Amino acid sequence: MRSIVDELVSVLGADKVSVDEATLAAYAMDRAPVLDYQLPVAVVRAGSVADVQAAVRACTARRVSLVARGAGTGLSGGAHASEGCVVLSLELMNRILDLNPDDETAVVEPGVINADLNAAAALHGLMYAPDPASYKLSTIGGNVATNAGGLRCAKYGVTRDSVLALDVVLADGTLIHTGHRTFKGVAGYDLTGLFVGSEGTLGIVVGITVRLRYLPREVHTIAAFYPDFRSAAAGVLTVGNARVQPAIMELLDGGSLAQLDRIHGSELASRGASLLLIQTDGFGAAAEAAAIRPLLAAGGAVVTMAASAEAEQLVELRRNSRGVEVDDEYRVGEDVAVPRSRLVDYVAELQAMAVKHAVQLKVVAHAGDGNLHPTFWVDRTGTGVDADAMERLGAALDDSVTVALAMGGTITGEHGVGQYKLRWLGLEQKEPVRELQRRIKELFDPAGILNPGKAI
Amino acid sequence: MRSIVDELVSVLGADKVSVDEATLAAYAMDRAPVLDYQLPVAVVRAGSVADVQAAVRACTARRVSLVARGAGTGLSGGAHASEGCVVLSLELMNRILDLNPDDETAVVEPGVINADLNAAAALHGLMYAPDPASYKLSTIGGNVATNAGGLRCAKYGVTRDSVLALDVVLADGTLIHTGHRTFKGVAGYDLTGLFVGSEGTLGIVVGITVRLRYLPREVHTIAAFYPDFRSAAAGVLTVGNARVQPAIMELLDGGSLAQLDRIHGSELASRGASLLLIQTDGFGAAAEAAAIRPLLAAGGAVVTMAASAEAEQLVELRRNSRGVEVDDEYRVGEDVAVPRSRLVDYVAELQAMAVKHAVQLKVVAHAGDGNLHPTFWVDRTGTGVDADAMERLGAALDDSVTVALAMGGTITGEHGVGQYKLRWLGLEQKEPVRELQRRIKELFDPAGILNPGKAI
Repeated sequence: MRSIVDELVSVLGADKVSVDEATLAAYAMDRAPVLDYQLPVAVVRAGSVADVQAAVRACTARRVSLVARGAGTGLSGGAHASEGCVVLSLELMNRILDLNPDDETAVVEPGVINADLNAAAALHGLMYAPDPASYKLSTIGGNVATNAGGLRCAKYGVTRDSVLALDVVLADGTLIHTGHRTFKGVAGYDLTGLFVGSEGTLGIVVGITVRLRYLPREVHTIAAFYPDFRSAAAGVLTVGNARVQPAIMELLDGGSLAQLDRIHGSELASRGASLLLIQTDGFGAAAEAAAIRPLLAAGGAVVTMAASAEAEQLVELRRNSRGVEVDDEYRVGEDVAVPRSRLVDYVAELQAMAVKHAVQLKVVAHAGDGNLHPTFWVDRTGTGVDADAMERLGAALDDSVTVALAMGGTITGEHGVGQYKLRWLGLEQKEPVRELQRRIKELFDPAGILNPGKAI
Repeated sequence: MRSIVDELVSVLGADKVSVDEATLAAYAMDRAPVLDYQLPVAVVRAGSVADVQAAVRACTARRVSLVARGAGTGLSGGAHASEGCVVLSLELMNRILDLNPDDETAVVEPGVINADLNAAAALHGLMYAPDPASYKLSTIGGNVATNAGGLRCAKYGVTRDSVLALDVVLADGTLIHTGHRTFKGVAGYDLTGLFVGSEGTLGIVVGITVRLRYLPREVHTIAAFYPDFRSAAAGVLTVGNARVQPAIMELLDGGSLAQLDRIHGSELASRGASLLLIQTDGFGAAAEAAAIRPLLAAGGAVVTMAASAEAEQLVELRRNSRGVEVDDEYRVGEDVAVPRSRLVDYVAELQAMAVKHAVQLKVVAHAGDGNLHPTFWVDRTGTGVDADAMERLGAALDDSVTVALAMGGTITGEHGVGQYKLRWLGLEQKEPVRELQRRIKELFDPAGILNPGKAI
């Protein structure tokens, strides 16, 4: 039998198969911390469904692992290379195959950039709702693989809620179509939902039919500065109790404000120790904003008194704050979610953890969802590794996860388990549920070649 | 080994196990046409999770089929008894275990009536969004089993979109918990979604955690009467093109108006040959209604000019019209969905089919979803079965399904495949997809005792 590289070159052509060191290194990881660095043996850039099928068949025949990826913006290591694997990049499959403004649907290849689909949809007064912070870079295929969230999920749902149908190449190379082009459809089991969020471990998604939503014509943005983080977190419940559903409800603590100030030269930290940033949209945007502004003020906030350009600018800053500082061994970020009623308590616990373990903390949260992104870090001292600091960081991180779980939360609201969060999955899911997932994996991928060691 | 009935009585107590003819007959079917009438050998009324586990274990040990059911309001025969089966009624498990107004979630037993959950939620300004026409009778468990839809799905989603977590008794009696209490959560595969809509073929749902939505404080209802059905269907696209998202958008043809007139003594049919009934809700309700009223009028409709009590009354009539006339061998209803852009074409095709096959037709549609409920019937002539009429009805029904599929639609938008629609499933789903589902079924239920012959 030919080697995997020879076979890939033979069936796909040399131009689609890279084995040079620089390319292998560039495709060895996504943006998550690396626990087990591996170089792939080859990188395949698929240009068509047939290319994907050929690559999958070649790998299956040789029991070579296959790690599919889009733009590699994932934060949990779902696209990290595994030992001896082929990385299958779907970046070049980036065509919007159909966009039907009357159906309010689009059919895209997996490599289409989230922002590009949104730009195309906007021409028709439509939008693709899921908006991870990486939306300018990340692909719809990657978003599907991780069931990506974003800022406006509380109102518009996560990726799963916008995916109607999928084309998937199975481990044996078979191409299947799941789901329906209609908004509703209940024929058979929900295979579409099973593939969404499965991180390329059950099949390779090569086509995605999405539902589009209406691009809101009106948007009102409120910036509410609070004297402390707990009051700001309480503001989230205030909005909920008013039964107003904002499109965006982001919570930033003092550390996050200081970071934005450093990057953008703003002076946010001088205005409060915490910021609750709320955007209402649609025909009721103004009325909704008017309903909640006095409630926030009554809760201790200094509230922008009109729909202000500055507040909208803050949303843009928030959207684009991720990626400026990359997590490394001295800096670790989490993605827990807690029931909304526990937000205030959880924030207090986070602050106590930072003190207890003598680490720095900053927190941003998609607060409407109870989804928090705490970041713990220690300042580098000298050049060597500070083993004690590493231990304190690890302890804070573990605490942040176990406390979230104890409050009825989850270890991952939107980033996915990938490789990085596997160590905590057993704390959230009991053995019978994990075993069921292993058996589903085995059913779809008996040889275990699809992104092994991820997701479950 | 004891007989199944003796065993059930032994482990559950005689008061929970019925074998009298009247009870067996009462639990032999749901509201779908019956293709293969079977009496169960026993009806178990479970009062607890432990009862369900005991019943499942008894059936698995004896290879006796188990058909779980809620209120039996299903329209596809998902709860019809199969040969020699035990029917497991979950009606008595009807407690709302938790309703947290800050979390905006509720935890319920499967037998809770949809309307009862909504009444409890309304006390906190919340609602459980999925609202099948049977909401006053049907259970949340049954809604989950069929992934039930309803009137306000276009805006608020179907059952799947409101279910966060499930407690499920597997075929071996193991109790598992899937999903998360938080709005977002992406740990592992989406088992929750896999169980929703699986019609009791993969496990018995014994607990459901749902997300609640905000009960709209304002509602505007528009009744738009059209001179013909096609113009009314075109009105649906007009609303969509205005990028207004109504909570409810129901389309009724002349036959449906005549039916309402007969039942309620109204005079709707005299006002137009078709009615498009639209309800906007939330803070933008008035503005949305104002935006679409002139557009509908421009499309040929006579539009109620204010949010009128009469129009709201019409929504109530529409909600409660189902169930007055039960389908039988002379009357068959469908549940197809088509992409929205094909609504007008599909409606025209339906009318042509009725003419071609010389059958009567009436249509109601959840038009915002492209989900249509055409009903074909023939008038009874004399007392015997009219074989020719049966054949014409069957042909019209088959045509309605194949034409919907040819337009990119589905055989079932919200009722489920059950037993009744199995004959068409192969037209929609290709063999590899059907085979995958069979293998998933086998994985969850190796002995094949859970609601055999349904759903897939």
